[in-house]
Amino acid sequence: MSTATYTVKGMTCGHCVSSVKEEVTEVSGVTSVEVDLASGALTVVSESPVDQERISAAVQEAGYELVGVS
Amino acid sequence: MSTATYTVKGMTCGHCVSSVKEEVTEVSGVTSVEVDLASGALTVVSESPVDQERISAAVQEAGYELVGVS
Repeated sequence: MSTATYTVKGMTCGHCVSSVKEEVTEVSGVTSVEVDLASGALTVVSESPVDQERISAAVQEAGYELVGVS
Repeated sequence: MSTATYTVKGMTCGHCVSSVKEEVTEVSGVTSVEVDLASGALTVVSESPVDQERISAAVQEAGYELVGVS
């Protein structure tokens, strides 16, 4: 298993959180997604490491911006 | 036709606007709903005047608060 934490910018409410979770969950190999609205933290658990580009693309698809990795 | 404008508190993004529009559109007699995110203005057009209580209940159902009428 692999866990990565990113920072997402632009989420303002629970609907935004749901949108991000939905899109990132659809990325192949991802098994679990957690989002913290207050900090913008996006935690992605996957079977094996996933390219940041694919996570970033999913976040953009939801309408937000991935601004960092931690 | 009757038009009433209210103020809704708590909306932060387009998802919030959609939720409010969806719930208020379901109120019997309502024919058109417009929401302005920046100002919180909710404009409701209906066949005949609708009780504010019913609009307020729909806004609450969406998860927000109707704080005034203008």
